[in-house]
Amino acid sequence: MLHKIIGLTVRDVRFPTSLEQHGSDSMHTDPDYSAGYVVIYTDCGLNGFGLTFTLGKGTEIVVCAVEALAGLVVGKSLEAIVSDFRGFYRLLTSDSQMRWLGPEKGVIHLATAAVLNAVWDLWARAEGKPLWKLLVDLDPKQIISCIDFRYITDALSEDEALDILMKAQEDKQQREEEMLKEGYPAYTTSCAWLNYPDQQLEQLCTDALKSGWTKFKVKVGADLKDDIRRCRLIRKMIGPENTLMIDANQRWDVAEAISWVSSLAEFKPLWIEEPTSPDDILGHAAISKALAPLGIGVATGEQCHNRVMFKQFLQASALQFVQIDSCRLGSVNENLAVLLMAHKFQVPVCPHAGGVGLCELVQHLILFDYICVSASLTNRMCEYVDHLHEHFTSPVVIHDARYMPPKDPGYSCEMLESSVQRHRYPEGDVWKQFKNQ
Amino acid sequence: MLHKIIGLTVRDVRFPTSLEQHGSDSMHTDPDYSAGYVVIYTDCGLNGFGLTFTLGKGTEIVVCAVEALAGLVVGKSLEAIVSDFRGFYRLLTSDSQMRWLGPEKGVIHLATAAVLNAVWDLWARAEGKPLWKLLVDLDPKQIISCIDFRYITDALSEDEALDILMKAQEDKQQREEEMLKEGYPAYTTSCAWLNYPDQQLEQLCTDALKSGWTKFKVKVGADLKDDIRRCRLIRKMIGPENTLMIDANQRWDVAEAISWVSSLAEFKPLWIEEPTSPDDILGHAAISKALAPLGIGVATGEQCHNRVMFKQFLQASALQFVQIDSCRLGSVNENLAVLLMAHKFQVPVCPHAGGVGLCELVQHLILFDYICVSASLTNRMCEYVDHLHEHFTSPVVIHDARYMPPKDPGYSCEMLESSVQRHRYPEGDVWKQFKNQ
Repeated sequence: MLHKIIGLTVRDVRFPTSLEQHGSDSMHTDPDYSAGYVVIYTDCGLNGFGLTFTLGKGTEIVVCAVEALAGLVVGKSLEAIVSDFRGFYRLLTSDSQMRWLGPEKGVIHLATAAVLNAVWDLWARAEGKPLWKLLVDLDPKQIISCIDFRYITDALSEDEALDILMKAQEDKQQREEEMLKEGYPAYTTSCAWLNYPDQQLEQLCTDALKSGWTKFKVKVGADLKDDIRRCRLIRKMIGPENTLMIDANQRWDVAEAISWVSSLAEFKPLWIEEPTSPDDILGHAAISKALAPLGIGVATGEQCHNRVMFKQFLQASALQFVQIDSCRLGSVNENLAVLLMAHKFQVPVCPHAGGVGLCELVQHLILFDYICVSASLTNRMCEYVDHLHEHFTSPVVIHDARYMPPKDPGYSCEMLESSVQRHRYPEGDVWKQFKNQ
Repeated sequence: MLHKIIGLTVRDVRFPTSLEQHGSDSMHTDPDYSAGYVVIYTDCGLNGFGLTFTLGKGTEIVVCAVEALAGLVVGKSLEAIVSDFRGFYRLLTSDSQMRWLGPEKGVIHLATAAVLNAVWDLWARAEGKPLWKLLVDLDPKQIISCIDFRYITDALSEDEALDILMKAQEDKQQREEEMLKEGYPAYTTSCAWLNYPDQQLEQLCTDALKSGWTKFKVKVGADLKDDIRRCRLIRKMIGPENTLMIDANQRWDVAEAISWVSSLAEFKPLWIEEPTSPDDILGHAAISKALAPLGIGVATGEQCHNRVMFKQFLQASALQFVQIDSCRLGSVNENLAVLLMAHKFQVPVCPHAGGVGLCELVQHLILFDYICVSASLTNRMCEYVDHLHEHFTSPVVIHDARYMPPKDPGYSCEMLESSVQRHRYPEGDVWKQFKNQ
């Protein structure tokens, strides 16, 4: 069967998370977790679902960008796409006129992610497998053929990439079984959003410890005294054995980052996340160097906009934890390139998740990373946030603070149609209700 | 008078330049020079005009982004904006929800440029001066107050920036008079677009030499044999004394760039422009290092998306010519930061221009750079392309291959309303005509 794509729709879906300060940090004080939500329709009745994550305002711009890309997708068959996925990736990212709007960054790249996520979902459904399993079963050569190596060959050649995948083939069956049995380790960001009062933080932390969580992330960066108080509180609650990470969401300049984080060193954070501009490779390198003697690593990636940037972060030793994002990079294709580069540079990947749908998507990528690339769990864990999973047809399953591998075919980002309808912006019932208040 | 902003409109204006291969290069084979064109209206009848440049498809996405920003502009007064221009810049670039779409890159930043260009135009008109003269006459402290130093203080502090401006105050009167009399040196890209046949190239080159041009840029990167033939042809025509630059528009990976340009070294190009990804700071640094012994510099910037990237290009010695763009960076505000950083690192600024409106806009910035920042013309020149100037109310004036300082109040980017109407996409007469063919 050919699975000819005969239509593509995109909708602006927003959740009013800012009402309860979920997701608040030092730079994003009132996010409404949202998505540009894509459905592609085929002539044989099978559909593909994809999304890119946004924070509310401006989602309509991403929707507009998806509509601009739709013409490059509709009319093609799934089989034609996946038989030259690198070519299709480049068709979307290197359109002679549209690449000026990026290239491969910002709105146009978020739109590319949404569209390609839907294509990957469709492929996995057509194969009757969850996406991670589709990837695990693909021939390494076909994996390579999905990746656009343009601009990264100075760090990773196709041959090197193939070699990495071939080496991991040997024991992959064993790791797949391990994952199916035990799941992939996770950490939680749900306890300590910046604007949560201390009492709420304590309560959430208590509950999380009871549920078996051992790794916790705290938002910092707005006020040093507050940060010291909150870090002290959470470190006291979780004890010295558990893991603490801190996240500044790009709040500081380079010198300020070094001095601020040094003031929090007594709380033994494993990493400082996004200490400064996501574009500042050399700044992150300087911060990494300064904090290394304190035993604090630098993590970044949720706003690292493409493989060329990740390449340089790795080349410059500017991060010690690679945080891939399933919706900012150009879908699975570009994330594969980053996973392989991270392996070559021997830097662990700890994906960014949360928002809406990010956990559902990225779990597939990190499962593939463990089974077929890194073959290691050392210093590795995937972010988890306990919000909005109820809107998905195949929500994540967490057991004992671990992601259990999804079993349903696809990329796990199909939303309940009723949720989509209620949260469409501005016409859904949820938003009409605010308008009428 | 307060100049309260009471409205903002944005239109999608496109010129069918691809029909004659104007603007064609190795990555952008068929650009239709276009703009997101903004008008802001005040309660006292004075309007401000601004634009951002695009290549055709996708301009509607930029229009959508401008509309999303409009709410942050309408209702404010010009005086309130310019009394805290840094704050206003940050309001547009750091909106808690919208910054996720960038931050400060891609579509959302192009839209920011269009809006802020219109605000600067309004300010210059309100002062009755061309923009360059407004800048030249501003107190250095007020110039500094327009710049967002976030993320660049490790390269340039406010005090250092002020110091640079103060030092240049002394002889600025003399340089202003020099510019008014002699103009700012330019080079031409009009002769050698990639898809022009050799005969056309020869004819254009002959004409340009007659008109006094001495500096020429050739597009390269698609086919090495073609490049050798074209470079040989143009070098023969312009002779050994004139200046040749080559431009690959991001076509190569790092190793390929070094080998390809080495093959063209015999034609003595002053620079290779955009040899690889605009995001690849470390790649440009490697290319710079490899080509230095051949006497070839690296130029880049037209797709360098913000001051954080320029900062690193300078820190890493990754370019020898800084090519600012008036419509990709966050308008005058962010370009001021780049001019000052370039001066500190002693790298000459040679602006990107061409497209539609880019020459009109950027001439103001480079005049300010000479009069108030660099005080030098060594290795400096501004790009010029002879297209589409007829659509502006105050088109550039070129005498003897030099930009003559504009005299009309404003930022020179007001289009003839008749041109806007005819070229509106898709409803303008020019585009209806193609539809009917």
